[in-house]
Amino acid sequence: MTLTTDFGLRDAYVAEMKGRILSHCPTAVLVDISHQIPAGDIEEGAFVLARAASSFPPGSVHLAVVDPGVGGTRRALAAESSRFRAVGPDNGLLAPLLDAARVVALEIVGPDGGQPAATFHGRDLFAPAAARLAGGEALEALGSPVTDALIPAPAGATPAVLHVDHFGNCVTNIDPRQVPAGGGWQVRAGKRCISLRVATYCAAPAGEPVLILGSDGRMEIAVRDGRAAATLDLARGDRLEVIQTDSTPARRENNS
Amino acid sequence: MTLTTDFGLRDAYVAEMKGRILSHCPTAVLVDISHQIPAGDIEEGAFVLARAASSFPPGSVHLAVVDPGVGGTRRALAAESSRFRAVGPDNGLLAPLLDAARVVALEIVGPDGGQPAATFHGRDLFAPAAARLAGGEALEALGSPVTDALIPAPAGATPAVLHVDHFGNCVTNIDPRQVPAGGGWQVRAGKRCISLRVATYCAAPAGEPVLILGSDGRMEIAVRDGRAAATLDLARGDRLEVIQTDSTPARRENNS
Amino acid sequence: MTLTTDFGLRDAYVAEMKGRILSHCPTAVLVDISHQIPAGDIEEGAFVLARAASSFPPGSVHLAVVDPGVGGTRRALAAESSRFRAVGPDNGLLAPLLDAARVVALEIVGPDGGQPAATFHGRDLFAPAAARLAGGEALEALGSPVTDALIPAPAGATPAVLHVDHFGNCVTNIDPRQVPAGGGWQVRAGKRCISLRVATYCAAPAGEPVLILGSDGRMEIAVRDGRAAATLDLARGDRLEVIQTDSTPARRENNS
Repeated sequence: MTLTTDFGLRDAYVAEMKGRILSHCPTAVLVDISHQIPAGDIEEGAFVLARAASSFPPGSVHLAVVDPGVGGTRRALAAESSRFRAVGPDNGLLAPLLDAARVVALEIVGPDGGQPAATFHGRDLFAPAAARLAGGEALEALGSPVTDALIPAPAGATPAVLHVDHFGNCVTNIDPRQVPAGGGWQVRAGKRCISLRVATYCAAPAGEPVLILGSDGRMEIAVRDGRAAATLDLARGDRLEVIQTDSTPARRENNS
Repeated sequence: MTLTTDFGLRDAYVAEMKGRILSHCPTAVLVDISHQIPAGDIEEGAFVLARAASSFPPGSVHLAVVDPGVGGTRRALAAESSRFRAVGPDNGLLAPLLDAARVVALEIVGPDGGQPAATFHGRDLFAPAAARLAGGEALEALGSPVTDALIPAPAGATPAVLHVDHFGNCVTNIDPRQVPAGGGWQVRAGKRCISLRVATYCAAPAGEPVLILGSDGRMEIAVRDGRAAATLDLARGDRLEVIQTDSTPARRENNS
Repeated sequence: MTLTTDFGLRDAYVAEMKGRILSHCPTAVLVDISHQIPAGDIEEGAFVLARAASSFPPGSVHLAVVDPGVGGTRRALAAESSRFRAVGPDNGLLAPLLDAARVVALEIVGPDGGQPAATFHGRDLFAPAAARLAGGEALEALGSPVTDALIPAPAGATPAVLHVDHFGNCVTNIDPRQVPAGGGWQVRAGKRCISLRVATYCAAPAGEPVLILGSDGRMEIAVRDGRAAATLDLARGDRLEVIQTDSTPARRENNS
């Protein structure tokens, strides 16, 4: 079972969830994806969860709690597809895992059948539900089927920074086919223009921002031994511009 | 078994303890509570440990090391009650878990019967003791009974901030019955006055500090989508003032 | 199995590795050493890995990825000795574990026999190799023997700061025999002179930097209830000077 939250690592909150899971399902293997999702940042949580979940074996239960609407009217979900099982709030966080999934709305019931703490469904509602799934209960035993789980509108085709990682690399939604290694394009990104694509970080010239195909199939902006986000003054959501140029050598020199 | 320390996550220290535990008890299931207790902050460690431990199944072994007096004259303890087993220094850190517990003072013996490293009892003394408990040894096999474990004097009834969490929420010791949802009270907290209690974070008006019943039964000061500690300039230990006012609407308007 | 990386805790990267390991070897017990090695800092990674690994039982597999040369020409290694098994890049990171070890160069093959992602050998190459070792495969099944793994030249005898830990303690390579508890020496360290060695942190006079024998057998510079690195303005790599003085009391007073 994996856990993804915005709870941080200083407080007891993550451990409280784990204690509840192990109370219900002592054999659960718990793996942290991240507890350092920025507070309330559903989009970032969904991004990190989706990346990590794809490396786990089918049948893993992915428990995710980035839940600014806790205690309000948002529903609580559990879901299952051939690749994933997932538990979390109905706010878009689980959306990347819901493709071809059956989804149920959890009954809002806490330990011993009472009310869950209105501020901590992670501990009182989601963790027990995830433990029940991990323990072998059928999805349908957890709630009533729903077909309208919140799926945020896709970001669209506008090139942008999707994520800035720990190394300062900027993951983008640029189509790799638009920026072939042979050149013939420019990417305007923050303060700089990029016109070089390399295969590995260590193939980049020192100090020059480059494009590189990341390990999740997305194009990244990187600076060797540096932090691209700082060098180019880029943050998540920033727009990029991809310009197709003449790919003849002469023209390419003008652009570089 | 759970672990709570002030060792941080950069160094090898936490892993050294885990390696020793797994060397002694390969089947131990290790769950981190927090390793980001501020250095030497026994009170904060006790607070976080107590919260988390209450969600773990009875019989779990809680190993806690916030130990500025390591190598000095403070004793080393192991304890067991119907709800908890615990290992750590005799400095108040374990106090919340010692209610109705049998307590023993560990013999200060390191690996192979020699001296433990004077600066790292966590690895050489506490981790092996916790592993022995987890492996099924009786508490009394670890040391001699003591009845005078250090229990810090309770903070008393003076309203104050007990803890500032990852989200900037301020956990307090205000009696929930003094601040009913119907009003008739004011809480002076740092720069601001609070006169509204809500049930969930998302029920709070934007930007207005509110009281909310936290998931551990304590009243919290929170700001929706914000950080109450920053908005109100509050830190742990800061005093609060609870004023009972006339609860008629007219009077309440004057106070708001 | 342990994991040591510079990937940080915000992104999905560590979890992706763990998902791959558990996909290959579902019974692996995963213990984090640190994921907060500074980006690309091989020397620091090797230091932390070596310290932690020595507390784990023989046969543990130590997976380490601080890998600025990923995708380039550096080899990928797996190794086994009577004390350690290890997997990681051939850049010095594993050097402290290679004493008397058999070493093989991993074939650079990714999942399903294809190419590993050129930017993430941790997930596509090292994690599967570590899982195979943990699952019982022989070292020699993973690659061809090599005898020239990169072992950085030792730092030499010049006294210096090897590591600054979470508490601000400065771990050094000063020979403990040069600085006996009885005095007769001075250590010039940054802004200050140290002439006192104590056995425990709490035996140090408040505010005075002292030497103390750390739990890994190295001499540390510490300030009780403070941060020695900040007080003395020391960082990793900074040189120290050990001066043998007359050990008579009169002379020692002059030096203190």
